[in-house]
Amino acid sequence: MAQVNPTVGDLEGNCGIVVDYARRAAEAGAHLAVFPEMVVTGYPVEDLALRASFAEASIEAVRGLARRLEDEGLGGLPVVVGFLNRSADAAPRYGRPAGAPQNALALLHGGEVRVVSAKHHLPNYGVFDEFRNFVPGETLPVVRLHGVDVALVICEDLWQEGGPVAAVRDAGAGLLVVLNGSPYERDKDDERLALCQRRAREAGAALAYVNMVGGQDELVFDGDSLIVDAGGELLARGPQFEETLLVTDLELPVAAPAEGAPVPVSGIRIERHVLSEEPVAAYEPLPGRVEPRLDDLAEVYAALVTGTRDYVRKNRFGSVVLGLSGGIDSALTATIAVDALGPERVNVVLMPSRYSSDHSVSDAEELVKRQGVNARTVAVGPMVDAFEAAVEIDGLAAENLQARVRGQLLMTLSNQHGHLVLTTGNKSELATGYSTLYGDSAGGYAPIKDAWKTLVWELSKWRNAEAARRGEVPPIPENSISKPPSAELRPGQLDTDSLPDYEVLDALLDDYVGTDLGRAELVAAGHDAALVDRVIRMVDRAEYKRRQYPPGPKISRRNFGRDRRLPITNRWTAPAGLA
Amino acid sequence: MAQVNPTVGDLEGNCGIVVDYARRAAEAGAHLAVFPEMVVTGYPVEDLALRASFAEASIEAVRGLARRLEDEGLGGLPVVVGFLNRSADAAPRYGRPAGAPQNALALLHGGEVRVVSAKHHLPNYGVFDEFRNFVPGETLPVVRLHGVDVALVICEDLWQEGGPVAAVRDAGAGLLVVLNGSPYERDKDDERLALCQRRAREAGAALAYVNMVGGQDELVFDGDSLIVDAGGELLARGPQFEETLLVTDLELPVAAPAEGAPVPVSGIRIERHVLSEEPVAAYEPLPGRVEPRLDDLAEVYAALVTGTRDYVRKNRFGSVVLGLSGGIDSALTATIAVDALGPERVNVVLMPSRYSSDHSVSDAEELVKRQGVNARTVAVGPMVDAFEAAVEIDGLAAENLQARVRGQLLMTLSNQHGHLVLTTGNKSELATGYSTLYGDSAGGYAPIKDAWKTLVWELSKWRNAEAARRGEVPPIPENSISKPPSAELRPGQLDTDSLPDYEVLDALLDDYVGTDLGRAELVAAGHDAALVDRVIRMVDRAEYKRRQYPPGPKISRRNFGRDRRLPITNRWTAPAGLA
Repeated sequence: MAQVNPTVGDLEGNCGIVVDYARRAAEAGAHLAVFPEMVVTGYPVEDLALRASFAEASIEAVRGLARRLEDEGLGGLPVVVGFLNRSADAAPRYGRPAGAPQNALALLHGGEVRVVSAKHHLPNYGVFDEFRNFVPGETLPVVRLHGVDVALVICEDLWQEGGPVAAVRDAGAGLLVVLNGSPYERDKDDERLALCQRRAREAGAALAYVNMVGGQDELVFDGDSLIVDAGGELLARGPQFEETLLVTDLELPVAAPAEGAPVPVSGIRIERHVLSEEPVAAYEPLPGRVEPRLDDLAEVYAALVTGTRDYVRKNRFGSVVLGLSGGIDSALTATIAVDALGPERVNVVLMPSRYSSDHSVSDAEELVKRQGVNARTVAVGPMVDAFEAAVEIDGLAAENLQARVRGQLLMTLSNQHGHLVLTTGNKSELATGYSTLYGDSAGGYAPIKDAWKTLVWELSKWRNAEAARRGEVPPIPENSISKPPSAELRPGQLDTDSLPDYEVLDALLDDYVGTDLGRAELVAAGHDAALVDRVIRMVDRAEYKRRQYPPGPKISRRNFGRDRRLPITNRWTAPAGLA
Repeated sequence: MAQVNPTVGDLEGNCGIVVDYARRAAEAGAHLAVFPEMVVTGYPVEDLALRASFAEASIEAVRGLARRLEDEGLGGLPVVVGFLNRSADAAPRYGRPAGAPQNALALLHGGEVRVVSAKHHLPNYGVFDEFRNFVPGETLPVVRLHGVDVALVICEDLWQEGGPVAAVRDAGAGLLVVLNGSPYERDKDDERLALCQRRAREAGAALAYVNMVGGQDELVFDGDSLIVDAGGELLARGPQFEETLLVTDLELPVAAPAEGAPVPVSGIRIERHVLSEEPVAAYEPLPGRVEPRLDDLAEVYAALVTGTRDYVRKNRFGSVVLGLSGGIDSALTATIAVDALGPERVNVVLMPSRYSSDHSVSDAEELVKRQGVNARTVAVGPMVDAFEAAVEIDGLAAENLQARVRGQLLMTLSNQHGHLVLTTGNKSELATGYSTLYGDSAGGYAPIKDAWKTLVWELSKWRNAEAARRGEVPPIPENSISKPPSAELRPGQLDTDSLPDYEVLDALLDDYVGTDLGRAELVAAGHDAALVDRVIRMVDRAEYKRRQYPPGPKISRRNFGRDRRLPITNRWTAPAGLA
């Protein structure tokens, strides 16, 4: 199982990854090499699936990949890859995309594409729009390899009842291979193993689950590829958030001689293919490699680092820049950036104003000293003064002005030096609109946009403890963690002037945004009724700001990316106007 | 037919509109009053459909509406409304949203909800995500009213073959009523009439098509409600982009006596209801009212004005502010704003820099004089100087700086005075990324973001000609239309320094973005190969900017809103990094 990190659209680069890992698999003596869902195109391709020229290029890339594997002496190793295909026989039908694009898999062998099949269950919730982009497949390919019947399916087909996985037992397969592009969500790895164990027992077959790793826009794939035997026992498991080749020896049952096509099961047509009947001679198996799981906070932190590293790399930036305020959000963002890219590629700007406290500057300087990032200080006073001389302002407009001068300074440095601007807002801010459009919300990528403020503190403490555990200097100044949060946009301002305590707020926000409870349910869940009304209104009114927020790594089931699609103009719970 | 303008989420306000128009219909002697698709909730509700509390509130609102109509003496008039329902009997099934939300219609009569049915064909392309948000209906309600059988369906069911409309002839209906939330697209009204005529002939029934009007986020509904007889002859047609009550007398066949439930046709169950058997006594019919269609440019212009007016009103802003450069984009945007809101609610800011030409100021001043908007001038020099003193910049960074100072000035005035900022970019700029993030792309609503630059000129000329035709002063200074376009961010700069001629560029962009042709097809269509490569790269690289662009009215089949979902990280045709 090749747990790899493709890039959307980079057909040539992705095929290069496949050849590289296929060679390593062959050198390790593998009899079958499997890659993740849509590894050839990267995943998810979104509406690129609807572009005929892209589908044709994907199909041609897979044919070329088969030839290249053969040319490089790897044609004897069956290689299974995911790609974008077009169904040859799907009739145009209402509700299905024109040109019949399919989320497909191909088995390559002997220089040829020997088997092609497509995903049956198409997820169409959360971040997924697969009914929009794909036509479902209706077959279960079963490939006889060294006398063992191997069934091949894709991702969501494993999660849903019925469909091709339900046909695996009837097909008599000894091994079920599942290609995945399964994005990270907190605690999902626990679910994933339990599901694989259940499906293996249902199918009466060993199950090999191969997932991709790495970041793609707002998604992060966590790897966590695994193999269980037909009884559900865990035999091998890859690391999280790292590329790996997971070579596992399995003892698999020899299949009965191939028969004619069996009766279709649950609307799925079983398609049998024979590559080889001769069993592999007995040999001493390798011990199964089972990598340990990360703890909850370690896992979340790794997702944020992975998302940041890949967004920077895949969009060909060499460096990042961010504003460092001395507060916890920018301190954690800087630390993630350093862990993702190294301190020499991280540039921070201290931008004190007349309202900045002494500790905000000293806490920021302390972080710079601990982490060794590139730092400069630009006082925003002269620019703020220039605006205030040009237009009459006060109150909120004056507060926002400072935030925008800072955002503009960062964008200017980005344009001048080619740095990607990292945005430092957290999910509690995004939810409530406690941010300035084009000010602190400006930038290219927002590493902690899916982390509630309370999680920001937890992650910061965890990261410092982790450093201490390793005998390193804790990267985040303790004072940034312990001091009360403030935007410092007017004298003595604290977040708690405008917002409830974050423990209270985040619990309510998670029930409203994460669980989608309505007003009555929120009150019934124990939240204060007046606060419920106030927070619902804040969240709904901030939709226009969230639409213009940069992307960032998704870590929760429901974030503020494409998996939450709400109108801006909405008077359901937002009776007041936005401003 | 009540061609009205509801607001998403405003259940109380929308029900008020229904009562108001039902009263007017009753006063006009109507025997049946029909309203658009989802008039009770507004449309589209997007993921609000998935919120159980919202669906329950919609259902309760419809029950309350039935009672209120009865209480106000309107219970004798059958009223058909669209609303968000939940299917009572839909079993949970993969690929369908939990809680079984439905895009439904209800017939209210005698204080009660007498008939409920749901949309069968769910559009899931372009801006629509209805497979994600709704469970399909499987019935065709046929209501006997004064002895006439009236079949009721919703929107997409008319456009697709099969489904409930195919069952109308078998049901023997004399009238087919279609509730619509059909967004405006250029030239769609021609298609719409032809479709209604064809369906009426297929069904052997008169057809009443009622559509909503008004703007909702990026969509504009154009009304254009119409009635054709069973032979397809046009009997009545409402105006475009205006609320209206279209009262039409029809001579309809008396149905055969009600029988038992007929055999299901095309998977659809016909459900018969009887309100009244007694035919209406003969009376002198009103002549059918057929409003003229707008010309192509008049229609586009009306869509932009409608979208702008409703976005401002529905989000409870009282006024707008925009930067006026003397160029054509801001001149047209200001003119649209004045036509939408009146000059007293439009504020323009002239923000000359050291690179602004004399004519840019004088052309802007001329527009102010002609239209009577509120104007002020703020020279950006001191603010630009303050930034340039703080950080070393040159080249593109210096150009962007000026644009961002202007964007920031507008946002500051917005915060101080509560104006909505109008963004003045056109579709050619959005496509190529020829704009500054947080600079000229800052704002709350972008009236011309779906108009190619060539269309911006056409609309400007049309608007001036229209004024001349009416004997008014042409609102747009002729020099703004005729001079070569320039961003004026460096001395003597012209758009043609960085971009091809707009006639050439827009034709290529429309084939790439609008028609989704691939590279080879674009070259085969006659576009210069080198230019194709350059433009494709520009378009794909600008995806991150478009994600942060404000909403604006959709006028073309494919714009840069939610109907085009492409990855930011994409190396398919974008080999170079973004910056």
